[in-house]
Amino acid sequence: MSEASEPMEPIGVSLLGAGNVGAGVLAALQRGAERYAARVGRPLELRRVLVRARARPRAGAPAGALTDRFEDVLEDERTQIVVELMGGEHPAREYIARALASGRHVVTANKEVMAKCGPELLELASEHGVRLLYEASVGGGIPIVRPLGRDLLANEITAVTAIINGTTNYVLTAMTYEGSDYAEALAEAQRLGYAEPDPTDDVEGIDAAYKLAILCGLAFHVTVSPDDIARQGISGLSARDFRYADELGYTIKLLASGRLVDGALDVSVRPTLIAYEEPLGKVDGVLNAVQVEGDLVGRVLFEGPGAGPKPTASAVLADVLDVARDVVAGRGPLEAIRYRKAVVRPPSEQESRYYMRVTVADRAGVLAKIAGALGDNDISIASVVQFEVDEDARTAELVITTHKARGGRLDAALATIRELDEVVEIGSVLQMAG
Amino acid sequence: MSEASEPMEPIGVSLLGAGNVGAGVLAALQRGAERYAARVGRPLELRRVLVRARARPRAGAPAGALTDRFEDVLEDERTQIVVELMGGEHPAREYIARALASGRHVVTANKEVMAKCGPELLELASEHGVRLLYEASVGGGIPIVRPLGRDLLANEITAVTAIINGTTNYVLTAMTYEGSDYAEALAEAQRLGYAEPDPTDDVEGIDAAYKLAILCGLAFHVTVSPDDIARQGISGLSARDFRYADELGYTIKLLASGRLVDGALDVSVRPTLIAYEEPLGKVDGVLNAVQVEGDLVGRVLFEGPGAGPKPTASAVLADVLDVARDVVAGRGPLEAIRYRKAVVRPPSEQESRYYMRVTVADRAGVLAKIAGALGDNDISIASVVQFEVDEDARTAELVITTHKARGGRLDAALATIRELDEVVEIGSVLQMAG
Repeated sequence: MSEASEPMEPIGVSLLGAGNVGAGVLAALQRGAERYAARVGRPLELRRVLVRARARPRAGAPAGALTDRFEDVLEDERTQIVVELMGGEHPAREYIARALASGRHVVTANKEVMAKCGPELLELASEHGVRLLYEASVGGGIPIVRPLGRDLLANEITAVTAIINGTTNYVLTAMTYEGSDYAEALAEAQRLGYAEPDPTDDVEGIDAAYKLAILCGLAFHVTVSPDDIARQGISGLSARDFRYADELGYTIKLLASGRLVDGALDVSVRPTLIAYEEPLGKVDGVLNAVQVEGDLVGRVLFEGPGAGPKPTASAVLADVLDVARDVVAGRGPLEAIRYRKAVVRPPSEQESRYYMRVTVADRAGVLAKIAGALGDNDISIASVVQFEVDEDARTAELVITTHKARGGRLDAALATIRELDEVVEIGSVLQMAG
Repeated sequence: MSEASEPMEPIGVSLLGAGNVGAGVLAALQRGAERYAARVGRPLELRRVLVRARARPRAGAPAGALTDRFEDVLEDERTQIVVELMGGEHPAREYIARALASGRHVVTANKEVMAKCGPELLELASEHGVRLLYEASVGGGIPIVRPLGRDLLANEITAVTAIINGTTNYVLTAMTYEGSDYAEALAEAQRLGYAEPDPTDDVEGIDAAYKLAILCGLAFHVTVSPDDIARQGISGLSARDFRYADELGYTIKLLASGRLVDGALDVSVRPTLIAYEEPLGKVDGVLNAVQVEGDLVGRVLFEGPGAGPKPTASAVLADVLDVARDVVAGRGPLEAIRYRKAVVRPPSEQESRYYMRVTVADRAGVLAKIAGALGDNDISIASVVQFEVDEDARTAELVITTHKARGGRLDAALATIRELDEVVEIGSVLQMAG
């Protein structure tokens, strides 16, 4: 065995990016050096760290390792594993591809790149006989990429339902339990560092859609473009929706959902009413959780911290150790499982139960008209509750829940309802789980 | 690549045992044959099935595959993977060892064997250049063995806390939410097939101790003998304990817990008061869950069905597919991570908060004496509630909770309390989580 003759030959690791997550990885590599050497069978050696500002010192990285030229990483012959932590599509995507093509194993936390071109990059890795690992791209520290791709591989996965954006879950939890309105809850999240100054990617579900595309690949062995995922953000939710949902026994979560229906895929990221007693209904604050349903396993749930430098370092370094152990054992990569292109059903054909909040003139006959518009589109009503009456404006607020209906039918009904003289406003239309 | 020249050369799989779980594996192998061939790159071929009664037909197994001689499995040269599903220590242990020594990969669901001699068998596998996988030995369908051993490998794991026996969790859930007493809840579990006619292994925590020993190996890289795990069963719990716990904001769960404290290991399986809002406090019915705490990841939770033929088949076949993919890729086994012998602290030195229910004569001064006995042993009281008074017998029931105290101190205090004239009975003494 080669490691017997060269017992201390280290395994070279280089980092691309040394921001928050990079700093977490550097700190963990330094603190855990001895432990990792024992677990791998050889020490890990930090070779190069690609940064924007080479002059600024970084804890855990010797000054000589810092570089602002990507080529310095490629030219370092002792780098066997490249860890990409830059985020964003460019130039991360090109750097990953070049590292793979140069025969380096790559570990990445980049959800955007893996969502947009994961299958191509995995193919490229395969061509070059190296591995591309991305546990940290979804769910932060929660083991989910490998469990879904390997530990549940005997299953026909039928559904993946996830809370995979901590920012929005923090905001929605505050709206549920503190009665905050959206702006207030978002401002608090920003103050605590849970939300970016520009929160668009989080609150509009873009971040969650990237992660969902990755999960769908692993679960269903299909490629899904993030653009094919129906999205609805959380910024339109009002405190009243949470109050009404609560009275019906529900909370509201931003659910990222992929579900196989007759061989086609329903994929969406939407704020969704879900019963408090459902496992995902209990996942609060910045926690993330992924629920997987399969023909053999039934339902399993993975829950934990979905972000932060330390949890992300846990996932990144698990991948690094996995590759390093393969290197020590002389194990090549597995054959990649081939993905086919997903057949994604348009939102108009997807079915869901719905919740809608409608402000109406407080006079007789209005409910009959709304019920008529729904009935004309084959949508049956599950419940109607009149929640508030504004005596001065002489308006009332109706909360209507429906049985399962197609998105297209709902849109048609809503168009009719919107035109009714008695309807002042359609406040919210939300999916309901189950 | 060899699979290019022999594209359809199947990978031979033989089963030892065809009981409930074996039937689940056979059914899944048959139903998923095409899918598995695609995922592995070659078909799986069922070669031999070791059974007690060869004459009885088994769904999914051709009559020619059935045998009642283990040697027939060993002598089948095309068997590359042996799946052990017999349960119990003997002869499963010997069969696993012989299969490994013959150069076969082994997949097992056997918690007893893995708990009692897992490290030796893993060593044996390593010597023979084959793999021994055991995902199904803990937590049924929940991916936990590989996530703990690989996906969290970058962490220093500090604690594993688990609900890993579905039978007892079903009984405890019924006692919590239906106010059942123990005998009633157990009878119902037996009627539903969730408990064996002889439930000893489950209700006394023996099954959970096996699984905990396996989890501690994976988490802390130590060998722990199941005999070193402090155990307390659930048969002594009364409906009153659940009522009082509830009034204090707690439920009662059989927690299997391993925790590193100053380099030593505290391990126990005990009914434990845990707050309803804790993640493990919400795991009800026959569900299992494992919570892992690590220096990087913080806390992660894995939840799902802990038993049953289909979930167990999910875990068994994940291991089979994993080995089969390695075979196709020509990947040898990883270097095993070496375990050291655990330093297990005796229960007398382990610390916990405690709940105790004491029936006392309803007269002045009794609390002072009990408090004195606790104080003399440096145990401080967190709360005292007098719950019930039996007017006829002139007795009251005191529920006392303590701050953290050593087991030895508690035993000393209890010995004193038991001798007090005013004390009729010490009804329950239970750990409290946190």
